[in-house]
Amino acid sequence: MSTRERILKASLDLFNEKGERNVTTNHIAAHLGISPGNLYYHFRNKADIVYEIFLRYRAMVEDYLKVPEGKPVSLENQFTYLELVFDGLWAYRFFHRDLEHFLEADPRLRNEYRDFTAHCLNVIERIIEGIALADVIRPLDDAQRATFALNTWLVVTNWMSFLKTARGDSDTAIDREALQQGIYQVVSLQIPFVNPPFLEETIRRQQAYQPQVSFPPVMQARG
Amino acid sequence: MSTRERILKASLDLFNEKGERNVTTNHIAAHLGISPGNLYYHFRNKADIVYEIFLRYRAMVEDYLKVPEGKPVSLENQFTYLELVFDGLWAYRFFHRDLEHFLEADPRLRNEYRDFTAHCLNVIERIIEGIALADVIRPLDDAQRATFALNTWLVVTNWMSFLKTARGDSDTAIDREALQQGIYQVVSLQIPFVNPPFLEETIRRQQAYQPQVSFPPVMQARG
Repeated sequence: MSTRERILKASLDLFNEKGERNVTTNHIAAHLGISPGNLYYHFRNKADIVYEIFLRYRAMVEDYLKVPEGKPVSLENQFTYLELVFDGLWAYRFFHRDLEHFLEADPRLRNEYRDFTAHCLNVIERIIEGIALADVIRPLDDAQRATFALNTWLVVTNWMSFLKTARGDSDTAIDREALQQGIYQVVSLQIPFVNPPFLEETIRRQQAYQPQVSFPPVMQARG
Repeated sequence: MSTRERILKASLDLFNEKGERNVTTNHIAAHLGISPGNLYYHFRNKADIVYEIFLRYRAMVEDYLKVPEGKPVSLENQFTYLELVFDGLWAYRFFHRDLEHFLEADPRLRNEYRDFTAHCLNVIERIIEGIALADVIRPLDDAQRATFALNTWLVVTNWMSFLKTARGDSDTAIDREALQQGIYQVVSLQIPFVNPPFLEETIRRQQAYQPQVSFPPVMQARG
């Protein structure tokens, strides 16, 4: 692996583990046993590393979500897309956490992230259209589809943060399984639109991701 | 206003405006024209200020959301709750942005925020039960209600971040109106469950929050 690749890999690992805010370029260099000067030869600053990692995240998501337009999407394929997306969120989990800060610090990233969101919303709409073409759900009008896609995006991109803040899980307590429980939550958005012949299969597939723990965790609510 | 109150007010303003990450206790003291020593007399560190602001945020939300259990909730009251909640999000908008960092830095806050989330989810469930008792929506079973409440929470708490990241709005471009467009999105979650006699009124009320701008912003999607 080239030094550049090793820097990116170590940065991603450290950012995911400790949070980008708690990791300096000096930490990254020390972790790799290289000099800060060597690191700066490859990346001017931490924002450059974050940007390069974003490009890889984006390439992966775009590769995962090659959804043809105007073609039916089976339930099986829809769940495959969901699993891939949640795997991607896990692999780059530091990114959505400090997103606002990254975008403020780097106008280039701000613009590209905005386009990336639009692209993802577009693909989600295609999937919704596809499962309607496969008769899984009833057809939706443009406004319904856009709203549904946006709700999906909000649930998907914020699921990790919910696990860490609202459930109080530490990072080590969040595994791939906990993360994929987000799929249960996402699928709940489409249940009301599912056509009767597909309801049983949709619910059966959804249940496979049902939270194993009480959810929210057992506690006394005030008031 | 006491010095303590002035510190809290200035901190909230600066955190909202610049992001907590970009504001030090020295900035806060300088902004108020007091010495850092005077500030430290009232608060040991920035985390203590964040904690005190959280207590006020929580008190406000709990005050806004006094929802009696097992009583019908009218559509009008539901929309009032939504407006109040989005006003609260706006007033304390720095909080959800760096939430993960705050909770990591302060175990006391982590536990209280977890309880606060559970309380809020509980209240959202009560509202859902209330609009079912008022025949606005069809009755939901426990699992459906919990899932619906959680989707509501995810959309509400992440709407601000969506405006700032996915639309690329700068903080100054986000006004109360843009924020309240989140209400449009939240209400879309309940539309599939609305009973026919209430559908027209629900949609009419929802449309009042419809985004005025194209949404997501007009752009070319790749791929």
